[in-house]
Amino acid sequence: MARINSNYLKLPGSYLFAEMKRKTDAYKAAHPEADIIRLGIGDVTRPLVPAVIDAMHRAVGEMGSAETFRGYGPEQGYDFLIEAIIANEYAPLGVEVAADEVFVSDGSKCDVGNIQEIFSSDARVAIGDPVYPVYLDSNVMAGRSGGFGPSGRFAGITYLTGTEESGFAPAFPREPVDLIYLCSPNNPTGTVLPREELARWVAYAKEHEAVILYDSAYSAYIREAGVVRSIYEIPGAREVAIEFKSFSKTAGFTGVRCAFTVVPKELKRRDDRGVPQSVNALWLRRQCTKFNGVSYIVQRGAEAVYTPGGMRQTREVIDYYMENAAIIRDGLEAAGYRVFGGKNAPYIWWKLPAGLDSMSFADKLLNTCQVVGTPGVGFGPGGEGYFRLTAFGDRNRTREAVERIRNANLG
Amino acid sequence: MARINSNYLKLPGSYLFAEMKRKTDAYKAAHPEADIIRLGIGDVTRPLVPAVIDAMHRAVGEMGSAETFRGYGPEQGYDFLIEAIIANEYAPLGVEVAADEVFVSDGSKCDVGNIQEIFSSDARVAIGDPVYPVYLDSNVMAGRSGGFGPSGRFAGITYLTGTEESGFAPAFPREPVDLIYLCSPNNPTGTVLPREELARWVAYAKEHEAVILYDSAYSAYIREAGVVRSIYEIPGAREVAIEFKSFSKTAGFTGVRCAFTVVPKELKRRDDRGVPQSVNALWLRRQCTKFNGVSYIVQRGAEAVYTPGGMRQTREVIDYYMENAAIIRDGLEAAGYRVFGGKNAPYIWWKLPAGLDSMSFADKLLNTCQVVGTPGVGFGPGGEGYFRLTAFGDRNRTREAVERIRNANLG
Repeated sequence: MARINSNYLKLPGSYLFAEMKRKTDAYKAAHPEADIIRLGIGDVTRPLVPAVIDAMHRAVGEMGSAETFRGYGPEQGYDFLIEAIIANEYAPLGVEVAADEVFVSDGSKCDVGNIQEIFSSDARVAIGDPVYPVYLDSNVMAGRSGGFGPSGRFAGITYLTGTEESGFAPAFPREPVDLIYLCSPNNPTGTVLPREELARWVAYAKEHEAVILYDSAYSAYIREAGVVRSIYEIPGAREVAIEFKSFSKTAGFTGVRCAFTVVPKELKRRDDRGVPQSVNALWLRRQCTKFNGVSYIVQRGAEAVYTPGGMRQTREVIDYYMENAAIIRDGLEAAGYRVFGGKNAPYIWWKLPAGLDSMSFADKLLNTCQVVGTPGVGFGPGGEGYFRLTAFGDRNRTREAVERIRNANLG
Repeated sequence: MARINSNYLKLPGSYLFAEMKRKTDAYKAAHPEADIIRLGIGDVTRPLVPAVIDAMHRAVGEMGSAETFRGYGPEQGYDFLIEAIIANEYAPLGVEVAADEVFVSDGSKCDVGNIQEIFSSDARVAIGDPVYPVYLDSNVMAGRSGGFGPSGRFAGITYLTGTEESGFAPAFPREPVDLIYLCSPNNPTGTVLPREELARWVAYAKEHEAVILYDSAYSAYIREAGVVRSIYEIPGAREVAIEFKSFSKTAGFTGVRCAFTVVPKELKRRDDRGVPQSVNALWLRRQCTKFNGVSYIVQRGAEAVYTPGGMRQTREVIDYYMENAAIIRDGLEAAGYRVFGGKNAPYIWWKLPAGLDSMSFADKLLNTCQVVGTPGVGFGPGGEGYFRLTAFGDRNRTREAVERIRNANLG
């Protein structure tokens, strides 16, 4: 008798996001004339840049001719893309990464969700709070948690709750943990982990033989000098950390699908007999068994992001979004609100007036300003009392939304 | 202290395929003048058809304009593709499939490898033998087996060994099993499961509350009337079976990446408390958590496979490969060999002269004919004594390979 994986039933469902959609749809139905502005979605809106479009047209053309057609590619990605990634993402930082340490995939969500498979099923998991929900959900599904409690937390998971005082840096755990998910620039807070804080995490992981799973999907949005763009800038990180990066937000690839993960060969962890094993070899095995590589057309598009034209054009798009971020940030501050993020990330983390929970505030914002955002509690209990706005919208609509917020009484 | 998933260490490595590559490379180095013909690879060689190329060019163009740009798509695939799949793969068979039962993905390998996650970790797994290795490997990695034994089998896995007498139909298990992987048309034997045999499996699964994982990636190659193209042609299958199909071999998408999986809503299996749960809902949850949809460009290309032009053009390509299959099959039979498959699949399963093991035969074929194929033992212990040739090569090269084999003494 086949039974299902009952761990799935522990998940409460992404009811909050479904609930937000339901509320927005209901409002729209009740007020068909309403001009709703959506600043909730974490998706890009600007088109792909010409360099990428040209490269994908060329690649499509190649696939139509027997001489240049490509079938199965390498599971870990084509060399042309891996070399471009190393030359442009790591070499400028003085970070050495070998070609067989880079794994091209169809999305950081996939890699971040799948990476836990290569570790033991009893690993103790630590996640930032608030943070992108996939780290938690994928581990709950794999049986690394107990049930979901009334506090909004899963038993058996270590929540590294960040506070305003610490700039939302995840707190260090009181009990030893094995897998540590860090996200910087952070989704949803838009804040970055300071270099010395990352160095503490690297030291912690080394001392405890833990593994840091470092999600850096938003690193292209870093504007301030000195902010860490890769965890491998931190000495010793190659022995303890796996890094995830993506073309989704860097180059508008959310609908195109390309990302990459770096697993250094120095990273070894023990098997059940205590023998150190290469984590890189495990991930290679996982990808070769359950993945068949990224579309050739997409990989050629990603490669073009690193051409001179591609770099200039994608930088212009990121500038556009970051100007939106500044408009939101400045506008909210001018209206007397306290906000975080938006300087090195496309997310603005809005501190709500005292006494308002983030779901009720979503209602109020919709009803008063016809603006949609994301309640902070959707990213973990540590997100309660905050609200996420994104900078991925149209410039004029973003201005309009900020104007409405400034003129409204939301206190 | 993070430990690795030690189940990975049970896998002996794909040493056979690596060994075949090493041998071929060594032969090439020792005989630089040798004209080696590769009939080992399971990859297509013909270019994408014009209808698909045109559709992908259009989609690339859309992504370059703000008005038509698409970001994140639905994790389960765009409606336009799902509707085309239902109308063209299922409606003509009289099989009803609902839109929310179809999950578009970037490859059947991914889906076939990931599907086990939604079942309990102690499920008893049954696999065909010989068969495509991913079914086995993904379950070994998930801890559903013991160690790899000297017989070439994993402890705790039920091998459903097919024989010549049964047309390589997997044998029914002696012990109750929970997850049953069936592949028809079969890779590597090229044979198909008769309708009455499939009906027996459906009855078995119903009786034992098992789940059939039906890999039908090669169904577009079926030529004989009456052969089952979807397991849902069998009454009752919607209550017991998940079906996997792919554009890889249907339309040359091995380097483009698109497939789909059907999970009927009637399929329910019990949780740890004995309560029946929707398997469809579990797979939706899995995909929404760990997958972000297939590239929009690729989905438009897949949709074009079902246009009148796309259907005619892809049919011509499949005809081309199937003529290759006939050439190999007829040539080997004329030389006095016994062969299977090649009638409803692009694979020819070559029975080796008595006393020859498949690895030694690979050496002999390379040395004598400069032809590369795949030793049957690479697909499981039941493949020993056989050899797989594929029909995906160039016509003239295929003819040449067959000519060499006919003129050689391989006995």
